[in-house]
Amino acid sequence: MDRETTVADTGLTAGLARLAAQGPAVPPGHPALDAATRAFIDTIGVALAGWCEPPVGLLAESLVEGVEARSLLGGRRLAARDAALLNGMAGHVLDYDDVAVHGHPSVVLVPAILAEAQRLGRSGGDALRAYALGYEAWAELGRRESGSYHLGAWHPTAMLGTVAATVAAAALNRLDAETAIHAIAMAASFAGGLIANFGSPAKPLQAGRAAASAIEAVSLARAGLTGSPTALESPHGFLRAISPGGAVDVDGPLRLAAKADDLRLLSEGLSVKRYPVCYASHRAIDGAIDLAIQERLRPEDVARITVALGRAPAATLRFPHPETSTQARFSLNHNVAAALTDRAVGFAQLSDDYIHRPEIAALYALTETELVDDECPEQPGLARFDRVRIETRDGGRLDSGPIRYPRGHARLPLCDADLDAKFLDCARHGQVAEGPALLERLRALETLTDLSELVA
Amino acid sequence: MDRETTVADTGLTAGLARLAAQGPAVPPGHPALDAATRAFIDTIGVALAGWCEPPVGLLAESLVEGVEARSLLGGRRLAARDAALLNGMAGHVLDYDDVAVHGHPSVVLVPAILAEAQRLGRSGGDALRAYALGYEAWAELGRRESGSYHLGAWHPTAMLGTVAATVAAAALNRLDAETAIHAIAMAASFAGGLIANFGSPAKPLQAGRAAASAIEAVSLARAGLTGSPTALESPHGFLRAISPGGAVDVDGPLRLAAKADDLRLLSEGLSVKRYPVCYASHRAIDGAIDLAIQERLRPEDVARITVALGRAPAATLRFPHPETSTQARFSLNHNVAAALTDRAVGFAQLSDDYIHRPEIAALYALTETELVDDECPEQPGLARFDRVRIETRDGGRLDSGPIRYPRGHARLPLCDADLDAKFLDCARHGQVAEGPALLERLRALETLTDLSELVA
Repeated sequence: MDRETTVADTGLTAGLARLAAQGPAVPPGHPALDAATRAFIDTIGVALAGWCEPPVGLLAESLVEGVEARSLLGGRRLAARDAALLNGMAGHVLDYDDVAVHGHPSVVLVPAILAEAQRLGRSGGDALRAYALGYEAWAELGRRESGSYHLGAWHPTAMLGTVAATVAAAALNRLDAETAIHAIAMAASFAGGLIANFGSPAKPLQAGRAAASAIEAVSLARAGLTGSPTALESPHGFLRAISPGGAVDVDGPLRLAAKADDLRLLSEGLSVKRYPVCYASHRAIDGAIDLAIQERLRPEDVARITVALGRAPAATLRFPHPETSTQARFSLNHNVAAALTDRAVGFAQLSDDYIHRPEIAALYALTETELVDDECPEQPGLARFDRVRIETRDGGRLDSGPIRYPRGHARLPLCDADLDAKFLDCARHGQVAEGPALLERLRALETLTDLSELVA
Repeated sequence: MDRETTVADTGLTAGLARLAAQGPAVPPGHPALDAATRAFIDTIGVALAGWCEPPVGLLAESLVEGVEARSLLGGRRLAARDAALLNGMAGHVLDYDDVAVHGHPSVVLVPAILAEAQRLGRSGGDALRAYALGYEAWAELGRRESGSYHLGAWHPTAMLGTVAATVAAAALNRLDAETAIHAIAMAASFAGGLIANFGSPAKPLQAGRAAASAIEAVSLARAGLTGSPTALESPHGFLRAISPGGAVDVDGPLRLAAKADDLRLLSEGLSVKRYPVCYASHRAIDGAIDLAIQERLRPEDVARITVALGRAPAATLRFPHPETSTQARFSLNHNVAAALTDRAVGFAQLSDDYIHRPEIAALYALTETELVDDECPEQPGLARFDRVRIETRDGGRLDSGPIRYPRGHARLPLCDADLDAKFLDCARHGQVAEGPALLERLRALETLTDLSELVA
């Protein structure tokens, strides 16, 4: 080695910058590109569904026209940062986007990449590789924290997402490692977002802002502005700033994929939400759908439904007799009733009309819960297993058996048909006529030559 | 009382929102308006001087044209948020802006107010009152923290400044208290900035971004977006998020001025930097200038200069024989030499040419320091007193006596003539021909009917 190795060479900030500038090539057809394609499909679908939520409309109206990128809906041309802000907010407003690595990676990464790739005219392959690198950065940041971000005040999706999306955007911009260092350092300064704002539209706004801030940080680094080459790992830096208890490894060795096969997107995966309702009811919905299909069960056959689940999820699902669509999302009774009746839980099962149907409401009264204290080491907050048991009017006893992973979990991924079905349900909910055509383009994202052609 | 008092009514977020919406009127000619006018003069002067720093030019070039507000220099019309970003960065890039309430209040408040007041066509009186309310909010946030922000990772000027400038901008926008709550909640989400980035252009960028984020938060609240009404005081909220050790009073009673005479801007004031060099040398410069004037001292009379000062300031002033302008800013020897020779320390005394003049360099070798361990309880990091003693070639012994407050400190404010002199020195350094005319308009800011007329 000709020169001394400096802190900045071995440190986290420089390491993520090298990941952006010199990260592994991902050959065509590689599974990482397929995994990233699925993330784009799911995130864009969810954002289409979120589009008709009133706060998203308010944000859209407040933005001025631009030229660089398009909003996913509404045909707006916006500055890249504003497109990322708006699409990110739309993607997170329903809490229906994917989960991994201490947060919701795709709802920050995908909007940032979509906007920058459009601005730059980059290919689908470039966009998918940038996603995999952004995910890698996110996982590297997240694994260094030993505490639980949710015990603190900083919103991990917004905080980690700003830096990770900057790595993705830097890769798309083909920044050299030196420039990428400064983009990351400024992104660390720009990151913000509080758990206190959960339950308000400011929460999804924080996800959108993370995507927008990444684009701004890269833009300023391109312009020549600079930050500290140890902004992430400094004692006065990003990781210490957001650590809820200070138990964070700021200077341990980097563990970043050197080749495509080692990308954490493949080993850690993404948990996709299959149903547009509270995650705490997903295992029970799976069990109920399986029983209904296997046993050819009709709702009128049911005498009694018993769902075994953890205390925390049971407390979260606090509306046994929901009156509104919002309450139905947090109603175990409703979600199981819809699963048994329609063998599906989508937006159609959340309409006011549906919730009050007599045959659905009749099932609410037949449902009871059984609390389980055995917590799942891998999925904190959930029981080790949930279980659905049904007694039929003719005395039959049906049992789902123990359910460990909800369908869509990283360990139990959705098949393509289910992922497509979710996308199309989302597009219908967002009243997007061209949903099927957009899905077709997304399925072929890896071979798209210019991202500007994705959203017309 | 007709309804129950809720947490949100008595809490900090709601309290600051009421300050913005229903804060005290400030009658014409009130001393608070004069204090705010001085803050505008000093901050705008410093920003003019900062304009020629390369990172400010890079930022200016990266911004797209807008319509809402003007940059202080360069005649650019920009979006209000971008004008605030740019003017804020220019105001902080030289570290020459004022100090109070745990940070640098004016460099965030003034750029945010300038931009919003231009966009809205508000009067000088409105702008000055908004400044006083923003300062009040800043002081209220700052006093709740018992630890030292500088031991943590969050940049207090950027963090507190984002929320305080939102209070000022909300007042200028005449938001009602309900809307102001949401502006403040979103501002709390948008705040960011790390001490790790000190020493790089990202530091002044953080000040500018705080001003810009305040404008964005108010804009989104006007559009109807909302956040949590307890975003500041929540256990998962802003004050806990930025507290370096958790010693923060989130729910203590509000202490906000109910009338103009009680505004903290009057009781706590602003410390203005008199010289464009490291603050640690300001007391010694004052002592040297006073001795030179009182004793009609000529540099060639000096045999020996002894400066007594604290250990930390002495360590900061680490260039006894400076070679560059940047080093000269951190050189006690240089600053005292210039003070004795020119009875002034301004930008003229920092040129490369000046630093290497033989009669100046000769004094460097005659200067020594004496370390004092008695720390000032009121000005942490500094000694209780500094002191300058000079032996002359004819055997005279001159003594400044103990110097407690540097000239410009809140307890020893600059007279108007000195404030004007600093402004004009800054304008010259920024090569602003219209400096004297701008100063005249600023002196009459209280009676200006439309802020758009300030910067032509």
